[in-house]
Amino acid sequence: MASTAVVSSDWSASSATARLLPFRRVQAQTCRLLHRQSVSFHCRSLKCSASTAAGNSAKVIDGKACAKEIRGEIAAEISRMKEAIGVVPGLAVVLVGSRKDSQTYVRNKQKACEGVGITSLEVHLPEDSSEEEVIEHISRFNGDPSVHGILVQLPLPRHMNEERILNAVSIEKDVDGFHPLNIGRLAMQGREPLFVPCTPKGCMELLHRLGVEITGKRAVVIGRSNIVGLPVSLLLQRQNATISIVHSYTQNPEEISRQADIIISAAGVANLVRGSWIKPGAVVIDVGINPVDDPESPKGYKLVGDVCYEEASQFASAITPVPGGVGPMTIAMLLSNTLLSAKRIHNFT
Amino acid sequence: MASTAVVSSDWSASSATARLLPFRRVQAQTCRLLHRQSVSFHCRSLKCSASTAAGNSAKVIDGKACAKEIRGEIAAEISRMKEAIGVVPGLAVVLVGSRKDSQTYVRNKQKACEGVGITSLEVHLPEDSSEEEVIEHISRFNGDPSVHGILVQLPLPRHMNEERILNAVSIEKDVDGFHPLNIGRLAMQGREPLFVPCTPKGCMELLHRLGVEITGKRAVVIGRSNIVGLPVSLLLQRQNATISIVHSYTQNPEEISRQADIIISAAGVANLVRGSWIKPGAVVIDVGINPVDDPESPKGYKLVGDVCYEEASQFASAITPVPGGVGPMTIAMLLSNTLLSAKRIHNFT
Repeated sequence: MASTAVVSSDWSASSATARLLPFRRVQAQTCRLLHRQSVSFHCRSLKCSASTAAGNSAKVIDGKACAKEIRGEIAAEISRMKEAIGVVPGLAVVLVGSRKDSQTYVRNKQKACEGVGITSLEVHLPEDSSEEEVIEHISRFNGDPSVHGILVQLPLPRHMNEERILNAVSIEKDVDGFHPLNIGRLAMQGREPLFVPCTPKGCMELLHRLGVEITGKRAVVIGRSNIVGLPVSLLLQRQNATISIVHSYTQNPEEISRQADIIISAAGVANLVRGSWIKPGAVVIDVGINPVDDPESPKGYKLVGDVCYEEASQFASAITPVPGGVGPMTIAMLLSNTLLSAKRIHNFT
Repeated sequence: MASTAVVSSDWSASSATARLLPFRRVQAQTCRLLHRQSVSFHCRSLKCSASTAAGNSAKVIDGKACAKEIRGEIAAEISRMKEAIGVVPGLAVVLVGSRKDSQTYVRNKQKACEGVGITSLEVHLPEDSSEEEVIEHISRFNGDPSVHGILVQLPLPRHMNEERILNAVSIEKDVDGFHPLNIGRLAMQGREPLFVPCTPKGCMELLHRLGVEITGKRAVVIGRSNIVGLPVSLLLQRQNATISIVHSYTQNPEEISRQADIIISAAGVANLVRGSWIKPGAVVIDVGINPVDDPESPKGYKLVGDVCYEEASQFASAITPVPGGVGPMTIAMLLSNTLLSAKRIHNFT
């Protein structure tokens, strides 16, 4: 089993995975809470029941197909812009250190950029670089008119102040949308964020393309990370859902979750959400991607979501698979934000 | 009945009142929703039942006494700072136009400043001032080392862009805490806001001084305004409550509210929250302050909260009255933020 985060080529939100770790740290508590509810599990990889009853079977939300469609739309839009004003969007990625998973994510992002016609630039710095060196490169990209989006691949080496480095990214080029000013605008009525963070934007896009009504619906978000749980709850509220946020301190997650018309789970705990957590007919978006032991796999592990898929699909009206659900959408939204930035900077509509 | 906002001398968050108005605009819908639940009401002033049953009677949370205690603590701290480093905190208020209620609020703030030893400065500009003139005064206060807090009294005249004017206030002196960067920091884990907005801070202070446990509790916030509902929900979540946010589009506000251990209502709808909305033993903080017809009053109206006080106090374990609950706390928190700012600017601990 992989000891470092996640290596699925379908999942490119390395930063998401990195930041979900705090939730994992309190997982022991979550497990205790689950235990009180007499749910059979063991920590780090809760077990799902196999699908036995021949009940309802949810529509599978095909994130891969949806992302492909969106990438097609983005490519067409980039061609149009290039023809009209001769501008090609550019995305710069700053990678520090030699984590294999981070290198994989960066490579996947570059491939995706190529696929739609975005120019991708990369700076790869050694593990022992100083904060100043990283910031110097960010500043150069801030001032480079061919760069419309800047992405710092997380996690950064431990000796670095992540907040300080992320704050160095110009808010006009912060395609990740993690800047507090951007999150503040996302939270406030009457304000508009410059960028919607990629994974939450991907979740909302799936709901929209599926035609899910959001206004007035009960939405439960599981997990409250800065990069998924928090912004996705703010987005749902912007669209007039009634939101509840479940996290590791929540005493009755199952009961609250069962009230939801829409569940978005971003807890980073394998098989946390059982069939009994799902109201019949609910729409389930599973952001989690968790490695669990699998002796049958050549790698010794497989990737599963936060949701017990087989159980949940007996109750849900629609559900995202893992992999192939939210993962592919995240990278499509990164491309979308880079295009948006280029259009805004060049005043192209 | 007063056609303009609120004139209680106990309530100084004029901006809060002004911004709750959008909720009132959708009140007709709220009323329709209530109607579905067969609750007897009429819009603009829902009726409470008189207290008849001799049930439980909630502890009254005395915001006036609590605020007095806090003002005493602030005064002592200001004396200590003055003696140690010779600095007195200064609060500048910018008032535009001649609204009677705004003038009353500003006067109350000045009186409160005097009471604790904060120097208060005021600029009063005519209704037909230009945005540039207002911003010019704000810029002058931004650069004035004797000013540690700047407050723009809302609402501004209609011809002014409120967002542009509020953004002119230096974030280091934004004692109202409404800047999106500040709200973003409040929302994000691992980030700290420079200032916590006054009314939400007052609500939390009441809960703390009352010894209410927040971690793991269900908290329901009614209303989602930028200045009360949103930030108070973020504060509750920072303290590990499980939050749900009820608003005008919520289809079953009563049912959700009844799950709460802590209810904070900031909807701006008189008597919206009935006894049946309260779980026995819940703590109820009523931020609303709404004028309703009262032929017995010399003014022709009286002020009531969002919560049917008599009904709710039969179920709640503790409840804030209106007036005399959150109102006095708001102004105490403004003084607290001004002191905090002066201490931070002068590096005084």
